[in-house]
Amino acid sequence: MLLQHPGEYISGEEISKRLSISRTAVWKQINKLRDAGYEFEAVSRKGYRLVQKPARLDPITLMSTMKSNIFGRHLKILEVTTSTQEEVRKLAEEGAPEGTLVIAEEQTGGRGRLGRKFFSPRGKGIWMSLLLRPDQPLSCAPQLTLLAAVAVCRAIKTATGVESGIKWPNDLLIGGRKICGILLESVAEDERLRYCIAGIGINANMTEEDYPEELRSIVTSLQMESGQAVDRSVLIGSVMSELEQLYRLYQEEGFSPIAHLWEALSVTINREVTLHTSRGMVTGYATGIDENGGLILENGGEKFTIFSGDVQLGG
Amino acid sequence: MLLQHPGEYISGEEISKRLSISRTAVWKQINKLRDAGYEFEAVSRKGYRLVQKPARLDPITLMSTMKSNIFGRHLKILEVTTSTQEEVRKLAEEGAPEGTLVIAEEQTGGRGRLGRKFFSPRGKGIWMSLLLRPDQPLSCAPQLTLLAAVAVCRAIKTATGVESGIKWPNDLLIGGRKICGILLESVAEDERLRYCIAGIGINANMTEEDYPEELRSIVTSLQMESGQAVDRSVLIGSVMSELEQLYRLYQEEGFSPIAHLWEALSVTINREVTLHTSRGMVTGYATGIDENGGLILENGGEKFTIFSGDVQLGG
Repeated sequence: MLLQHPGEYISGEEISKRLSISRTAVWKQINKLRDAGYEFEAVSRKGYRLVQKPARLDPITLMSTMKSNIFGRHLKILEVTTSTQEEVRKLAEEGAPEGTLVIAEEQTGGRGRLGRKFFSPRGKGIWMSLLLRPDQPLSCAPQLTLLAAVAVCRAIKTATGVESGIKWPNDLLIGGRKICGILLESVAEDERLRYCIAGIGINANMTEEDYPEELRSIVTSLQMESGQAVDRSVLIGSVMSELEQLYRLYQEEGFSPIAHLWEALSVTINREVTLHTSRGMVTGYATGIDENGGLILENGGEKFTIFSGDVQLGG
Repeated sequence: MLLQHPGEYISGEEISKRLSISRTAVWKQINKLRDAGYEFEAVSRKGYRLVQKPARLDPITLMSTMKSNIFGRHLKILEVTTSTQEEVRKLAEEGAPEGTLVIAEEQTGGRGRLGRKFFSPRGKGIWMSLLLRPDQPLSCAPQLTLLAAVAVCRAIKTATGVESGIKWPNDLLIGGRKICGILLESVAEDERLRYCIAGIGINANMTEEDYPEELRSIVTSLQMESGQAVDRSVLIGSVMSELEQLYRLYQEEGFSPIAHLWEALSVTINREVTLHTSRGMVTGYATGIDENGGLILENGGEKFTIFSGDVQLGG
């Protein structure tokens, strides 16, 4: 209630009536929230006013920002962990339900694509992993990778107004600099997906000084782009909503609508690109993605599809 | 040396010369092997004779049966474990090399396809998991599933003379009864396979009494089929050799030769089959497998491909 009326006083009596709990219970809950990092002003005859939300992520605020039904509804927030992917992998093996979300304020061993280290310092970014249990064949995993990129791109726009573009397959860039990395880990038995873990790292409130020098020219943050701090809880809620909506759409109508959304948000399509693949450099004009998530290139009348590699935008 | 000359005496002096170690060292090694379950007869002026190999699997005998270069060369033998798949998964995450093999005398939580319990009692069967690190896209995993089935089918023939047939995708049957179950677990990051674990369960030396009654009509064992006990070490060595050979062939020439071998050993192809899929029952005449490992069916002039399901042979 206090979150929904920022800056306003709400009397203890009104809170107790609306929630059908005693005045003592209201007072106890307010104190619990204070322990969690909330600051309230209490003025007699006026009531309580929310002065400050906690800087740390907390489950109460997070849950209040989520419009999703399943995604993020099983939530674990950690101060520090090696990697949220590993945390979710453990929970998945123990039978955790679809939509289980682990968020960490800091990762000490965050990994990006191709085993690269992922820079994930304390309190400034969003480092999280979401458990999916799609009843789909293994071959659908690359489609889910692209779906995740579309969802996060849309959520960033909704929550912060900042526009980013997708570099194939699933990096988000602003002005050529990285704002978000996504990694979809898939575990399958034979041809059937057992589960997927979408790892999402968003550079939210970093300033240039937060980055080591060698990264400064290739990364940016939402705060650096928009000039103001991002409410991480609102953004996480928005990501959960977008992901859940697109996941439903995908399950009901298949990959085609996702592919169209991806192509519209992509900075890779309709451009000359160079890719570093395991078989060397490949150059071509990117025309679209195919139903397996591969990037379709044209070069000198020849048409071919790339499934794995590192894009350099050029031309 | 003693394994290679069964029944023959080899003098301590000859052993010490050939291995360039002292007579005392020979005697110490013989005692170590005795501790591992080997039985030797020692006759003065004649030397040592191998009387009995250990009933339990042991690394020395196993290594001597392997002609593979990599597969099985990192070996862990466990008396009992929940599941060899889990053991290899842990080792894989710790960076274990390709070809790492874990074998257990007994599994307490062995799992088969579609999460089913896999019956794996003590000392009678072969329960093992092999780590693969193919530099391949995720979409190749179903091909590796079929490759594993072909390799084990061929290894059983080589080591025991028993002929079995492959039921799509990767069960081995003799006279309609199960002799071996294979499960390929794949872990991918985006479109790239991080590793695969081939879980292989072979019903080697069970007798009918070893099975619970409800399983007796649907399973068999190599001992029941051939009338004699199988040397598990020889069979494991043979599986490693066949797997490594086919894996090389696959990496050099692609899936096409594997597909031909699979079709030739299959009991599913050129038959009317019924499949239980997640979308209900499907019936058709099985004509082959496609490059994604899917089963191609024909029904009333219509041609379609199934990627996941449980085959019932009929017609």
